[in-house]
Amino acid sequence: MTAENPRQVGWGILSTGHIASVFAADLALLPDEAVLAAVGSRAASKAEAFASEYGFDRAYGSYAELAADENVDVVYIGSVHNDHFGSAKLCLEAGKAVLVEKPLTVSDAEAAELVRLAGDRNLFLMEAVWTRTNPLIRKATEIVRSGELGPVRHVAVSFGFAFDGDESHRLLDPEQAGGAILDLGVYPVHGVNLFLGEPEKLLGYGSYAGTGVDSHAAATLTYPATNSHPAATASVLCTLEANVPTRLEV
Amino acid sequence: MTAENPRQVGWGILSTGHIASVFAADLALLPDEAVLAAVGSRAASKAEAFASEYGFDRAYGSYAELAADENVDVVYIGSVHNDHFGSAKLCLEAGKAVLVEKPLTVSDAEAAELVRLAGDRNLFLMEAVWTRTNPLIRKATEIVRSGELGPVRHVAVSFGFAFDGDESHRLLDPEQAGGAILDLGVYPVHGVNLFLGEPEKLLGYGSYAGTGVDSHAAATLTYPATNSHPAATASVLCTLEANVPTRLEV
Repeated sequence: MTAENPRQVGWGILSTGHIASVFAADLALLPDEAVLAAVGSRAASKAEAFASEYGFDRAYGSYAELAADENVDVVYIGSVHNDHFGSAKLCLEAGKAVLVEKPLTVSDAEAAELVRLAGDRNLFLMEAVWTRTNPLIRKATEIVRSGELGPVRHVAVSFGFAFDGDESHRLLDPEQAGGAILDLGVYPVHGVNLFLGEPEKLLGYGSYAGTGVDSHAAATLTYPATNSHPAATASVLCTLEANVPTRLEV
Repeated sequence: MTAENPRQVGWGILSTGHIASVFAADLALLPDEAVLAAVGSRAASKAEAFASEYGFDRAYGSYAELAADENVDVVYIGSVHNDHFGSAKLCLEAGKAVLVEKPLTVSDAEAAELVRLAGDRNLFLMEAVWTRTNPLIRKATEIVRSGELGPVRHVAVSFGFAFDGDESHRLLDPEQAGGAILDLGVYPVHGVNLFLGEPEKLLGYGSYAGTGVDSHAAATLTYPATNSHPAATASVLCTLEANVPTRLEV
């Protein structure tokens, strides 16, 4: 928060990659709410170029300096998947609120550790799944929750495309936590979760790209009957191998 | 075949239920190809009423008499699910070709026995899944098989409705082999089979109606990569509990 306007939030951006650029450009559309405080990169030259392009006040050549900046209230973490955990931990330990690009982390254990850290310090922590805040999705959720359509019995979601990039691209690179599930799967799974909550079981199948990352995955999720809703199911599909409909159906 | 026209086939109808009526009415639209030879029911009065309504030459008060009628070349079996096996066996053993309403039988073992019997006697045996012969489906199959869309990576099929009938209805009656999978599931599964063939695995989930029959079932089917096609998946849904889209998507 700035002294002049307590509703203004000081934003730090960690990473200067594509998704960080998109996020920074969107932040600049909210001059009343967002102060573009600082950007951090492992390369000082990249941080400086990014700060000058998107109008950030300060540029740092390390993530630690960014996390230590007292004008930063919230850090948006837009680095590669397997860096999310370390960077989010660094920022939480420095007392910053954190918005982590999806996937939150690359393992359950890492995610639990971040949640615990944020809880202990009473800090905001959120995975940047923008679709959940999309007005259309919010409206759909509201309609379904109102019960006017009756209970939800099945949700079907598919999301994917035929990726034709190089094998060294992060999407296909195991070293950068590539693969369809971590990059795309979070959307279908969050979509189902919005309407049905936590599943009892997930019965799934995946196949692999030449680099060893999962490139195509489909699953059935199951929700047994409870006192408040009858049994339900969901089908999810994510793939880097085919142009499938981007669709969520309740 | 009749002496006058060797292309005419003598049809026998086994059962006088709803689906048998629909079939009989459709047969009557093909006077050049089909002779309405005979109908058989466990109740002679029902057989007689059916024969007179749909224009069949003879009516029998037993299935055995129908199977023995020398003017019958093919028997269409439209009885309840768990009668299909016994009636089809009776007709095959009497040397008749057989068209069995779906499901072919209620178990793998019964189906294998019918296939073996028909093979031994060189008799035609087919499950009456009309959708496979639907011109739209045939055209879709042709387009997909031509390869112009690329290899099939996922097939999604849903079929079902909110059944609001009585618990004693055959759809919900375990004694009459009711349930969503036997009544509806054959369509999604056949639909997937048309485009992807036999799956390696089926990972599924079902829930039950009060009578004990399955009333809602979803599954993921898996097809590992082979020399001729990349790995693929399918999602199927059948339900007696919700009005879902009747859709097959490749």
